[in-house]
Amino acid sequence: MGKRVVIVGGVAAGMKTAARLRRLDAEAEIIVLERGPQLSYGACGFPYFISGEVKSMDSFDHTPQGALRDSDYFAAVKGIDARCGCNVQKMDRVQKCVHYMEKGELKKLSYDVLVLATGSTPVKLPLPNADAAGIHSFWFPWDVEAVDKEIAEGGVKDVVIIGAGFIGLELAEAFVRRGLHTSVLEQQDRLLPQLLDEDMAALLLRDTKNPLLDIYLEERAGAFTVENGKVSGVQTDKRVIPAQLVIVAVGVRPNVELAREAGLVIGPSGCIAVNEYLQTSDDAIYAGGDCAENTHRVSGAKVFVPMGSTANKHGRVIADNICGARKQYPGVLGTAACRFFAQEAGATGLNERTARQAGIDFASAIVPGSDRLGYMPGVGRIVLKLLAEKSSGRVLGAQAVGASVAKRIDILAAAISLGATLENLSGLDLAYAPPFNTPIENIATAANVLQNKLDGQLRSINPVEFEKNRTQEDYLFVDVRTPAEVAAKRIADIPSRVNLPLDTLRTADISKMDKEQKIVTACQIDLRGYEAEVILRARGFQDVYSLEGGMSGWPYATESDKDKK
Amino acid sequence: MGKRVVIVGGVAAGMKTAARLRRLDAEAEIIVLERGPQLSYGACGFPYFISGEVKSMDSFDHTPQGALRDSDYFAAVKGIDARCGCNVQKMDRVQKCVHYMEKGELKKLSYDVLVLATGSTPVKLPLPNADAAGIHSFWFPWDVEAVDKEIAEGGVKDVVIIGAGFIGLELAEAFVRRGLHTSVLEQQDRLLPQLLDEDMAALLLRDTKNPLLDIYLEERAGAFTVENGKVSGVQTDKRVIPAQLVIVAVGVRPNVELAREAGLVIGPSGCIAVNEYLQTSDDAIYAGGDCAENTHRVSGAKVFVPMGSTANKHGRVIADNICGARKQYPGVLGTAACRFFAQEAGATGLNERTARQAGIDFASAIVPGSDRLGYMPGVGRIVLKLLAEKSSGRVLGAQAVGASVAKRIDILAAAISLGATLENLSGLDLAYAPPFNTPIENIATAANVLQNKLDGQLRSINPVEFEKNRTQEDYLFVDVRTPAEVAAKRIADIPSRVNLPLDTLRTADISKMDKEQKIVTACQIDLRGYEAEVILRARGFQDVYSLEGGMSGWPYATESDKDKK
Ligand SMILES: Cc1cc2nc3c(=O)[nH]c(=O)nc-3n(C[C@H](O)[C@H](O)[C@H](O)COP(=O)(O)OP(=O)(O)OC[C@H]3O[C@@H](n4cnc5c(N)ncnc54)[C@H](O)[C@@H]3O)c2cc1C
Ligand SMILES: Cc1cc2nc3c(=O)[nH]c(=O)nc-3n(C[C@H](O)[C@H](O)[C@H](O)COP(=O)(O)OP(=O)(O)OC[C@H]3O[C@@H](n4cnc5c(N)ncnc54)[C@H](O)[C@@H]3O)c2cc1C
Ligand SMILES: CC(C)(COP(=O)(O)OP(=O)(O)OC[C@H]1O[C@@H](n2cnc3c(N)ncnc32)[C@H](O)[C@@H]1OP(=O)(O)O)[C@@H](O)C(=O)NCCC(=O)NCCS
Ligand SMILES: CC(C)(COP(=O)(O)OP(=O)(O)OC[C@H]1O[C@@H](n2cnc3c(N)ncnc32)[C@H](O)[C@@H]1OP(=O)(O)O)[C@@H](O)C(=O)NCCC(=O)NCCS
Ligand SMILES: [Ca+2]
Ligand SMILES: [Ca+2]
Repeated sequence: MGKRVVIVGGVAAGMKTAARLRRLDAEAEIIVLERGPQLSYGACGFPYFISGEVKSMDSFDHTPQGALRDSDYFAAVKGIDARCGCNVQKMDRVQKCVHYMEKGELKKLSYDVLVLATGSTPVKLPLPNADAAGIHSFWFPWDVEAVDKEIAEGGVKDVVIIGAGFIGLELAEAFVRRGLHTSVLEQQDRLLPQLLDEDMAALLLRDTKNPLLDIYLEERAGAFTVENGKVSGVQTDKRVIPAQLVIVAVGVRPNVELAREAGLVIGPSGCIAVNEYLQTSDDAIYAGGDCAENTHRVSGAKVFVPMGSTANKHGRVIADNICGARKQYPGVLGTAACRFFAQEAGATGLNERTARQAGIDFASAIVPGSDRLGYMPGVGRIVLKLLAEKSSGRVLGAQAVGASVAKRIDILAAAISLGATLENLSGLDLAYAPPFNTPIENIATAANVLQNKLDGQLRSINPVEFEKNRTQEDYLFVDVRTPAEVAAKRIADIPSRVNLPLDTLRTADISKMDKEQKIVTACQIDLRGYEAEVILRARGFQDVYSLEGGMSGWPYATESDKDKK
Repeated sequence: MGKRVVIVGGVAAGMKTAARLRRLDAEAEIIVLERGPQLSYGACGFPYFISGEVKSMDSFDHTPQGALRDSDYFAAVKGIDARCGCNVQKMDRVQKCVHYMEKGELKKLSYDVLVLATGSTPVKLPLPNADAAGIHSFWFPWDVEAVDKEIAEGGVKDVVIIGAGFIGLELAEAFVRRGLHTSVLEQQDRLLPQLLDEDMAALLLRDTKNPLLDIYLEERAGAFTVENGKVSGVQTDKRVIPAQLVIVAVGVRPNVELAREAGLVIGPSGCIAVNEYLQTSDDAIYAGGDCAENTHRVSGAKVFVPMGSTANKHGRVIADNICGARKQYPGVLGTAACRFFAQEAGATGLNERTARQAGIDFASAIVPGSDRLGYMPGVGRIVLKLLAEKSSGRVLGAQAVGASVAKRIDILAAAISLGATLENLSGLDLAYAPPFNTPIENIATAANVLQNKLDGQLRSINPVEFEKNRTQEDYLFVDVRTPAEVAAKRIADIPSRVNLPLDTLRTADISKMDKEQKIVTACQIDLRGYEAEVILRARGFQDVYSLEGGMSGWPYATESDKDKK
């Protein structure tokens, strides 16, 4: 018999380590200790059970052939000794053993190599009445089953979700699909606050309209109201939102207690510190999955990014290294995407906040476009935002909202991982055909736009910036769309504006316009606004800017013909 | 007035050069000479007009705001003097001028910089009756209009498409959508012969079933049969296929006559030779789009890859360089994707043929999987094939067939462009959520599988190879699927086979099995086949291989319960 590898935690990182290890090493003794009742389940799918798209919880822990992935399965198929109901309480690094409780009995197991794959735990809100019936985390299978049962029993009409991270948003869509009136409460000023900048989050919000959905931003839950021992509402600093069901989805914390008590180094992110081989400060102990610290591939920052995809990759690298491969885990980009009603939202790499934290001097551009040729059935709008380092053009990060977002984010994640510059993105030979994209792909267009900006060829103003300053500034707003487009929708409260369609601008008599005055040009996506900027500059105007993203990128108030009396 | 730039050809590369140039240089005199009647049209969309998905040909040369992109448009909006009906007949490089015919008159125009964007011309088949009515190329707008008219007039029941490249396949789908019986005739042994290896093309064929569609491979058109001056059929070496409409889509040739006559260097691919700045052998002359030679980013080979996406990128680089930017065009990967009935097919980088031509020692793997979690609505099967250099693990190319192909091909194109190795692909932090993919993305799985193969951890046999050798060889076929799966479908004509479901294999009594005999394991996608291989090897069997891609990757004969009497 080979060396004994003990793995604490039997879901993603733990079971992936075990499975890969067995394939690499027929001799090793592989023992997984899991405190819960269930192994190897896919929590990521839970929201789609609530929505009704997935019919059975069995989907999450059965193979495509219908076999339950329990201890028997792992023994027979994968050659692994995986034990449920085994709660590890202490690690003894000197004796190289763990102490665990099984069926009320304290047991001891020695190891040659130990793997910590203990995952994370949802954060609770320490608010009045937080223990009332009807208030749930949404993390473990039993959470999901309880929520589903309460809905099925018919007592739920209104749901409040606290937290607008991706689990919160996936669940909001799920409850609405289930026919429930759903409110999302978020204390920060935007949806997906970890992922999206203010401008992009505002676009996601702008295009999310559903009669069953209410979103409350910059609003904090202060207490739960209760009737007959059951939750009846969420009390915020502004109102009481009725709720017979509340989901607390305000984030998770890595399970590091075991590691901390055993004296392993805990990193700045609060996770177990690991080197590039995913070894902890004790060479004989690896950590992977949610409990292990990640390094950001762009900034080098130590980050807590709990993802199932990462957990599986960690597991594979750990198994290889246990077998002596010295395989490096390359770190993460914090890539994520989620479906949210008719849109998708996603991000990879650094955003404005994390780029600033990293002390990088960057520029950004918001670039709307269509996700395939405009005449193709199914065409959708996608708004991309790119961030690049000013000095080098290195791409730092990307965000997207709209249609076909996950595709673009993945292409960008691949490119950023490999150190792409804007020029690299511009030259990518992507597969162009009308059902899939446009001859110059959205990503190349976005790169060109941002490069134009870095080159001073395009001088665009970010919509958030424009919104903040436009009441204090003196400028002329030159709308270069067609009169019909202007009539259909225009930005509200612009004191001084003129409509000069682009096709008139080269020859229009603009001799009366003040060449020193600040001019802001605008159109639908800023393609024509950019042309207008260039034309006006060539005609002697000094201080011309275009509104980045045009109307497509404008998340604030507009007036349409209908609104105008 | 600045320098005069004359551009020959006014569709993609030509008009893109002109438009970008105007934005960079307000002073330049920009003149486009186009021999045809129409500027700036998107030919790529033509098949979708035939299919009925796009309602009007106007979609292809009008802006989203409904403006026709004609000479007036380019003058007013883009500041470009673009002239139709101007056929350039000669370049005089000493005098720096071009001679062209306009309305029957020979004219002369001098240039400071000349841009050749003359595109390509469809190859004709020099066969008996090739000029009969009803036989068309499918390249120019008037081709499309003629084809549409013939169908609309009602005389067409059967269509034959000669050539199974991507235009041929897009059109096959289009005609079938239009309710026409459609035959595709291809002299090579596979669909998409430029793009796909034999195995992948066979999978595309296997899963393309439509009652209105016939595909004839390894069959040559020899003549056209004619009735009343109209085509009535295509005579092949094996039969006559009835046809009232024939599309010849056997490829295009770059329009290089002007350049050749003027003594510019023509490259090995038959295109106009250009350096990395897209300058021809004459510094004052640039070439871009279909007529210009491309360099393959992986092999460095000089290639003819006529794509609209490339033409637009060329145009932009040329404009930048005319303004002194010294921007390098990075070359192409030959990336392409097309929708074909319920599937997509695509490729990027090198395939087996081009990798061999490049003299690279490579390995490949075929990896089926699902394009998102198996329990999600809309899940589809995708089969990926990766090629990597043996010594370095550098990814050389990829092919895919099935669902969500364009997405994967684009991610891979980005990665390959930036020099990715298999290890890089394995570590990509792609956006994982159940609607989009699986925790270990198809691309990472494919990279892991091929790396396993390079490491000798997986010893799989390519299905084409297996098919070729299996009648001469002595081996035991160990099917490790469940009995139900085996009953539903199994490979035909296997002389010696046994069903040992994977969950029995670790403990099954196999003492009677010959440890020296060659064993081929197989399952649905080769995940279990791989596990079986590893298990059997650990149990002392020497000569064990798994069938790459399993049943999902098996394009040849199968027998199902129904077939068996
Ligand atoms: C609703 C939902 C949606 C999600 N969606 C996505 C998504 O779309 N994409 C994505 O990438 N990720 C998603 N995730 C996150 C993903 O599920 C986690 O990142 C992943 O499960 C982490 O795997 P892990 O193995 O590190 O930890 P876990 O899956 O948390 O497993 C850790 C296990 O360790 C056990 N354990 C802990 N301490 C001990 C101990 N002392 N003794 C014994 N056992 C112990 C726990 O009981 C637990 O079972 C989602 C999660 C949820 C809940
Ligand atoms: C049906 C179809 C589907 C396609 N699908 C795709 C796809 O999905 N993806 C993709 O990337 N590409 C696709 N293409 C290819 C794409 O359209 C071409 O690669 C692209 O148009 C090439 O642009 P170009 O400017 O180089 O040449 P062209 O578009 O061919 O334009 C060249 C122009 O130059 C003019 N010209 C030539 N010689 C002279 C002369 N001596 N004097 C004056 N004018 C001259 C010609 O009249 C012509 O108008 C498709 C093409 C077709 C026909
Ligand atoms: C399933 C689980 C136990 C891992 O077990 P596993 O045996 O490694 O299973 P996988 O499907 O990941 O991979 C099986 C092997 O087959 C290989 N494989 C996959 N498709 C293949 C194909 N078409 N041909 C050949 N090999 C293939 C994989 O590369 C892998 O081998 P490797 O790791 O040695 O390279 C673990 O991932 C798990 O518990 N998952 C569920 C929980 C989870 O992931 N939750 C978070 C997200 S919701
Ligand atoms: C349309 C055509 C004339 C090019 O004209 P163009 O003015 O360069 O038009 P594009 O849409 O490509 O780009 C316009 C500019 O706006 C920029 N732009 C695009 N979207 C933008 C946005 N949201 N914000 C700011 N700028 C934007 C682009 O970067 C580009 O500027 P740049 O090249 O200076 O960087 C030429 O591509 C053409 O004729 N196309 C049709 C034929 C064809 O392509 N056929 C083959 C494929 S079917
Ligand atoms: Ca279950
Ligand atoms: Ca027209």
